Amino acid sequence: MPLPGPIDPPARLLMGPGPITADPRVLRAMSAQLVGQYDPYMTQVMAEVQELYRGVFETANPQTLLIDSTARGAIEAALVSIVSPGDRVLVPIMGRFGHLLAEIAGRSGAEVHTLDVPWGRVAEIDAIAAAMERVRPRVLAMVHGDTSTTMMQPFEGLRELCDRFDCLLYADVTATLGGNPFPVDGWGVDAATAGLQKCLGGPSGSAPATFSPRAVEAIEARRSIEAGIRVEGDPVAAAPIRSNYFDLAMIFDYWGPRRLNHHTEATTMLYGAHECARLVLDQGLAAYQERHALHGAAMLAGVEGLGLEVYGDRAHKMANIVGVVIPEGVDGEAVRGALLEEWGIEIGTSFGPLAGRVWRIGTMGYNARRDAVLTTLAALEAVLRAQGHAVPTVGGVEAAGECYVNAGDGSPA
Amino acid sequence: MPLPGPIDPPARLLMGPGPITADPRVLRAMSAQLVGQYDPYMTQVMAEVQELYRGVFETANPQTLLIDSTARGAIEAALVSIVSPGDRVLVPIMGRFGHLLAEIAGRSGAEVHTLDVPWGRVAEIDAIAAAMERVRPRVLAMVHGDTSTTMMQPFEGLRELCDRFDCLLYADVTATLGGNPFPVDGWGVDAATAGLQKCLGGPSGSAPATFSPRAVEAIEARRSIEAGIRVEGDPVAAAPIRSNYFDLAMIFDYWGPRRLNHHTEATTMLYGAHECARLVLDQGLAAYQERHALHGAAMLAGVEGLGLEVYGDRAHKMANIVGVVIPEGVDGEAVRGALLEEWGIEIGTSFGPLAGRVWRIGTMGYNARRDAVLTTLAALEAVLRAQGHAVPTVGGVEAAGECYVNAGDGSPA
Repeated sequence: MPLPGPIDPPARLLMGPGPITADPRVLRAMSAQLVGQYDPYMTQVMAEVQELYRGVFETANPQTLLIDSTARGAIEAALVSIVSPGDRVLVPIMGRFGHLLAEIAGRSGAEVHTLDVPWGRVAEIDAIAAAMERVRPRVLAMVHGDTSTTMMQPFEGLRELCDRFDCLLYADVTATLGGNPFPVDGWGVDAATAGLQKCLGGPSGSAPATFSPRAVEAIEARRSIEAGIRVEGDPVAAAPIRSNYFDLAMIFDYWGPRRLNHHTEATTMLYGAHECARLVLDQGLAAYQERHALHGAAMLAGVEGLGLEVYGDRAHKMANIVGVVIPEGVDGEAVRGALLEEWGIEIGTSFGPLAGRVWRIGTMGYNARRDAVLTTLAALEAVLRAQGHAVPTVGGVEAAGECYVNAGDGSPA
Repeated sequence: MPLPGPIDPPARLLMGPGPITADPRVLRAMSAQLVGQYDPYMTQVMAEVQELYRGVFETANPQTLLIDSTARGAIEAALVSIVSPGDRVLVPIMGRFGHLLAEIAGRSGAEVHTLDVPWGRVAEIDAIAAAMERVRPRVLAMVHGDTSTTMMQPFEGLRELCDRFDCLLYADVTATLGGNPFPVDGWGVDAATAGLQKCLGGPSGSAPATFSPRAVEAIEARRSIEAGIRVEGDPVAAAPIRSNYFDLAMIFDYWGPRRLNHHTEATTMLYGAHECARLVLDQGLAAYQERHALHGAAMLAGVEGLGLEVYGDRAHKMANIVGVVIPEGVDGEAVRGALLEEWGIEIGTSFGPLAGRVWRIGTMGYNARRDAVLTTLAALEAVLRAQGHAVPTVGGVEAAGECYVNAGDGSPA
């Protein structure tokens, strides 16, 4: 074949469920040159990343670090390192990513029990309590915000429940961290894993994660050190963690003062993760979350202003994404195609029972911005009309604009 | 804590065993903005990456793709997807990374048998044959170039051996791909995995990999599709692959025409991997390898010109790295420290039995360059002298320069 040309992507406004348009400041940080794995500067940046993500996760956990994979890999790192084969794991499932937790726990050898919640709803604490009473799980694994349905699971009360059953609490916060409150210590979460490509405004490929002392204890009990670098006196676990790459005990050593060689840290992704967290904390975590609440509310108002129905339980919607019921007679994929091809705007479809029934429109990270919201609504209106679906003229843009005015954030659109 | 400043690394010339200084063209490619996971441009770049790496691996394997992890993760993806628990795996060990293969195979549930080779040597084909006769492995897993010792294992004859025992052949080519010949189809290799951070001139965090039809068949037999996106008629494996993230059957589907959602591709790393391969094939694979041979030879000559002893079996040395025996009375870490602090140059130490005994100096990817070689030799000479070790004046630089003259590549230094 002739040599392909250099990377030169078309202009896109990514308003789907993520990945979204990366913040240019993150891409700039990622263009910095590499240093060696044991360079003092590398050690400094890794330590800064740990401290930065303690801020983002609202935790004092010493074991706060990055997993060198996409968000999915970090879920696996948490579960395969904590769950011993045969352990019971309870997974409430309210969408696609609950299924994913169940599947990853299952592959880790867990005896998986699920609590099935109708899509578009969240799990009730009483139902979780009843399931825990029945299952007596070692780990309660929950998705915080499931982008497949846009629902966000309340975590209040889960710690008390877990304490009652001596159970560890794991949360997948990939889609919510930064854009919605998730105080790890405040809610007593033992392990939480995320990704950069949603509210944090970076590309996929590095996954922030944090582990409580309770989780660390469970992981340390399964520690082993690989033969190639083991020295006299190092422990050899009876039942080592099944994965080497996702062995958190070894990853803790790599990030810890021993700096024991494990993988070769993905330096460019590390730089990106560093900048993502800096942007959050520079604005201030609360302000960063409020920004997501504002632009999410504006998008929701705009969608309703266009006469479209919002999917799911409004009381438990994530701030950074809205599900839109595709109106009767409208070809959802044709609308998505026209938005992409004519306007350069991407919105999402959904999975499983919601495929072809619901669009998902995100307002997160770099794209939690007024211009991005208004542009998307104007484009959606035009495309719906072109597809023969009657919509109120500038109804979406006006409704969103009103939201901004009410928030004291600018003049009407 | 006060907010840390932005990423701003010190200037470094990374002449260790890798990661090495990234090619600025790769970093520029990685600064491009993201597109959506199902954008036509994304599909195009993924298809181009597959074809580009077929060129780099010298293979026609349809299943040539990236694993979203560092090189270590790709080793795990290959082994955990191919090896069923209880399978016998034979691992010749000639250095630290052989131990790593054995450990990853073990964690994947394999019955691991090793063939221990003295460090600084490679495995003899007769010894491998005898071990295969004894073990009857399902998989022969070998490191091609083990940076811990700088040794490169010959692969000629291994295919015939594997055919005789109906065995799959896996190779870890992390440290050699691009800088040393490794014709996957020519040598009949069933699975090979690499990384970007050595001869390919990129950062760690994405791992090119290729799988023969024979390997794909073994993997497909273990296929399962996760519940969240499973549809009627999809198969459910009796003994699914233990990892979800590294389940190659699902990763094949993600890269294949079905584009079935798995992880969220690390787009920025994808862009980088694309450019790495483009740089190799733009120069031409043979010329790219010859460049590594030339600068590797120059560094070796330079090291000897300084009166230093080269470590290991010269006949089987990797082109892109040289092991240097730390002279009696010289503090190896003090030399490395002075090189880094005073000259901004990083060279490597080694592991296990070679820690403190051997330096490792790389000449690969972007740093397979005359100026990088000469600068490193000049700095090493000055630092050794400053540490009280007598070395011939400009002996290293001159010897390397002679190498370039003999190769018709420039005037004497």
